Formats: sequence, structure tokens, C-alpha cells
Amino acid sequence: MSATEMRTIPDEYPSRTGAGVKWIPRKDPVVYPNDDQGPLTGEQLDFYRENGYLFLESLFPEEDISRFRSELRSIWEHSRNARAPEIIREPESEEIRSVFAVHRDNDVFRGLSRHPLLVQAVRQILGSDVYIHQSRINFKPGFTGKEFYWHSDFETWHVEDGMPRMRALSCSLALEDNYPFNGPLMVIPGSHRHYVSCPGTTPEGNYKSSLRRQIYGVPDHESLTRLVQEGGIDMPAGKAGSLILFDCNIMHGSNSNITPLPRSNVFLVYNSTENRLAAPFSGQAPRPEYIAARS
Amino acid sequence: MSATEMRTIPDEYPSRTGAGVKWIPRKDPVVYPNDDQGPLTGEQLDFYRENGYLFLESLFPEEDISRFRSELRSIWEHSRNARAPEIIREPESEEIRSVFAVHRDNDVFRGLSRHPLLVQAVRQILGSDVYIHQSRINFKPGFTGKEFYWHSDFETWHVEDGMPRMRALSCSLALEDNYPFNGPLMVIPGSHRHYVSCPGTTPEGNYKSSLRRQIYGVPDHESLTRLVQEGGIDMPAGKAGSLILFDCNIMHGSNSNITPLPRSNVFLVYNSTENRLAAPFSGQAPRPEYIAARS
Repeated sequence: MSATEMRTIPDEYPSRTGAGVKWIPRKDPVVYPNDDQGPLTGEQLDFYRENGYLFLESLFPEEDISRFRSELRSIWEHSRNARAPEIIREPESEEIRSVFAVHRDNDVFRGLSRHPLLVQAVRQILGSDVYIHQSRINFKPGFTGKEFYWHSDFETWHVEDGMPRMRALSCSLALEDNYPFNGPLMVIPGSHRHYVSCPGTTPEGNYKSSLRRQIYGVPDHESLTRLVQEGGIDMPAGKAGSLILFDCNIMHGSNSNITPLPRSNVFLVYNSTENRLAAPFSGQAPRPEYIAARS
Repeated sequence: MSATEMRTIPDEYPSRTGAGVKWIPRKDPVVYPNDDQGPLTGEQLDFYRENGYLFLESLFPEEDISRFRSELRSIWEHSRNARAPEIIREPESEEIRSVFAVHRDNDVFRGLSRHPLLVQAVRQILGSDVYIHQSRINFKPGFTGKEFYWHSDFETWHVEDGMPRMRALSCSLALEDNYPFNGPLMVIPGSHRHYVSCPGTTPEGNYKSSLRRQIYGVPDHESLTRLVQEGGIDMPAGKAGSLILFDCNIMHGSNSNITPLPRSNVFLVYNSTENRLAAPFSGQAPRPEYIAARS
């Protein structure tokens, strides 16, 4: 099936078309209607709808986390001298930045991706069955961890992966204590209600460099300033075992980490089965399966 | 007077001698004995002695700060397209990182450097008359502001400027609101009691690149980890007008700033008149007057 054959749906969220920056109001619900009983309260769902994220402090007990952490260490050890496309290194050093597809390649993280607590909470928000679109470990090592610049995940997933609508979310599970000073996730509350199209067009094979440092799909300074003026910046940082759920279109990023304290986390992206990938809206070849699951 | 003629005193704090990392206990007081009545309370002096820094929230009123800020804007405008050694740019862009010698070149900041509140507080700590060793504005612009890696100022001032003993301190005055997320100053409380000698030796003319990004005079990972294990990390962030006083030997640094909110501050270094510069202990030529005042 060619990229052209795959696309059968209109582009509701054009970006990187060379047309310059445009704000498009969100056309999709944030919390989808559903009858699922689940772990999230009505108040928590309201917070998520309003702000685009939800912070669940110390959700997983220490015994789970120490199991995940020992798994993370073994992935780190195994990846240090390995070469595999799933292993992404820091932009200015050979330190490991991320390892992708851990839900596919690692039994423990596959188990985590199917954990009833996560799946049920995600189903409550997305209002349907779900599957893993992407998973990875972000290491953000001490001393050398570099920033992740502001971006909407959906912008990339739409343009480069062909995700049609905003019906996906990310879970970031802290495997180490997060502090304000070791480069924790920053979100702009409310930014998930605006789609900020990005300047430029996407070069072929962009993902090979963009996972180290993003150059395309980067919002302009003026839009970011306006979003922060409207919504401010939240930095939900808590103990290892804390979980952040965040909407696929919320503007987020993180600063560098020069402290000795690493800030590794597991990152799981759930997509609705009603929102399966089409051809990339860039018109280019889809990214590999380990970055954006199609099967 | 040649560099050799200037040096008449022993090197109590050797560093970058090629001999590897060594911890040397501090040989100098933190708060020097003195009879000055001043603005700092006994409790504040105790905190400074113990932790190596002191945070004075909202010390300067908004009217002073808005005057400083408008001065800062005019220095920024004037420096944008100017070339002068005092203007230092970011390591990865042409954005202005710092402008040096503002106490010499700018009337408003000269006035600030002589403000009785500052001078009297500094005299209480250093126990003598004082003079400005260095001054600068750090702009840390939004979006592109890069980190300042961990360092002890004294290590550089000793090796590269010939400052004999630990009898100097810095005042950092916030000209913008500081938040945990726009790359505020981080200090390691208690680290001022240890002198961590650094590996390597100093290349001639090092300052020409080190003010953009420091490569020599950088402490090793193991020492930093140990210092943080002992003392933790404090991040005193407050409104514009807040002042941080910190010891010349406290280990400090700051993360990058990808937020739209700039984090500019004025930075004044006071040295005791009993501690005037000798020849640099590196054996090399002294750095220029605008970085380290000798006259």
C-alpha cells in the first residue's frame, strides 16, 4: 500500500505546509463521552478537560518502581554500546537520550502498558478501546541531559505519522524523583485547545535527527508567548511513581538537567482504536513501526 | 609590572595544575569578624555562614527595578549590533548572554553598585572595605538561554585572576520575576566549605571562550554528586527585586531557559580591599580589566 493509497481522509489540522503560522481551534473533544467506570473521578476528568493534563502523585508503589528502575538499568547497560534505531542519543554527546518501543521489546514494560489502572484511566478519557501508538524510556541523565523544546506531540503524529484526530494521550511515569531543578516536564495549561500550525515543510527522513533535537514542527516564539500569557506554565514534579497524563495536543517541553540527579521516565502513548493512522499528511513515507505503530 | 613580579604570595588553593581532582578544606572564614552595624541580622549572617548564600526576597521596590530594567533594555539595544569585548554572546546563537563592566560604563548600575544597602551588607560579611571586582548583566533570554554549568567562581578568580583568598562574594539582583522553570540560580548549600580543584590546565586566553561556555575550571561529576548528596540543591527564586548574596566559593549553576520568560539579572562581585588581586596562579597573563578589576 503506498502512502497515497493510505490517505482517505481530509486534513483537519494542516501544518508545515509552507503557509506560515496559523491557529486552528481544536475540532475534537478532550474527554470523549463514555460510560466506563474507571479510576478517575469526575473532578479529575474536569481538570483534565480544562487544563489538558492530570498529575497523579505517587500512583505506583515503591516496589513496582524499583522493579521498573532495575529494568531501566539493564536496558541502559544493554544499549550503551549497542547500535539500534530504537536507541536515540543526546544531541551533543553519546549519552543515551531515549530508547523506543519498550512496550514491544521488554516484558516488564509491556506489562506496564497493559496495567488495568492505566488502561482504564485512558479509556475513560478517550472513550473507546485503545492501543499503544508509541512507547519509550527517556533517560535525561544527570549533568548532560538536554532540553526538549516546546512542541505539541499531535502536530508531529499528524504530519509525520498520519494520526487523523486528537484522540490520543501520553502517560509519563516518573522512575526517579522529579524536582523543579532536574528538568521536569513543563506544560502550558489550556494550550491543548489551540492547534498551532508550524512554519516550514518536513524534510524526508526527518525523524532520524528530530528525536535528538527537533527543528521542524517547532512553534514560533509569538505563539508560545501568547499561550503562556493565557495559561501560564505548570511543572508537575513529584516522587518516583507519580504519573502525568497529558493530551496529545498540549504544548509541553522541558529544560536541561545539569544536576547529578537523573530524571528518567517511561513514556507510553495510547491512541483510540477509532483513530488509527492513515498516510502521513506530509505526503511522505510513514515513520518506522518502532516510533508509530501501524500493525 | 610583569605577571611574575606581581605574585608574591603562596598558592593556598591550587587547581588546574594537571594533578587531578583534590578536595581542599576552606582555609578562610565565611563571615569575617567585624563591628559594622548593618542591614543583616545575626540570624541572616548565621544562615549565610552555614549555607554559603542568603536570599532577600523583594529587597528593591518596583520603581527601582523598572528603572534598572529600562536601562537593561537600552544596553541590550545598544549591544545588539555592537562589537565590544564586554559583550558576550550565547554559545549556539548570536543572542546576548552577558554584558560586562556595567558598574564602570553605566551610571545607573554604577549607582547600584554603591547603594548603601548592598555595600553595608557586603561589609558585614567580608569585614572590611570592599570594591567591585567584576560586574555584568546576564540576560538569559527566553527560548534560547543556555545553562551555566556548575562552578565555583573563586576557582576561576584564583587561577585566572590571582585572587588570593576567599574573601569575596556575589550579589545577583533579579530584574525579572524568577520562577523554578526559567533557569534560576541553583546553589549547593554547604559546598562553599570545600575547595574542589579541577582537572586540566588553563589554555592561554581561555576567557575568550569560557564566558560563552566553560570547559576549564569545571568540577568532576563525582565531586558534584558528593556535594549534592551532602547539601542538596537550593533554588531561591522570587520576584523581580529579590537579591541573592552568595559566597565566592559556593558551587552554583543554572539550567537552560526554553520558556518565553527572560531571566535577566545584574551581577555584582565585591572583593575585600584586603584581598586585592596578585598575579594569576595559572602563571599566565591576567584577564582584562573589564572582567577582573585591578586598578
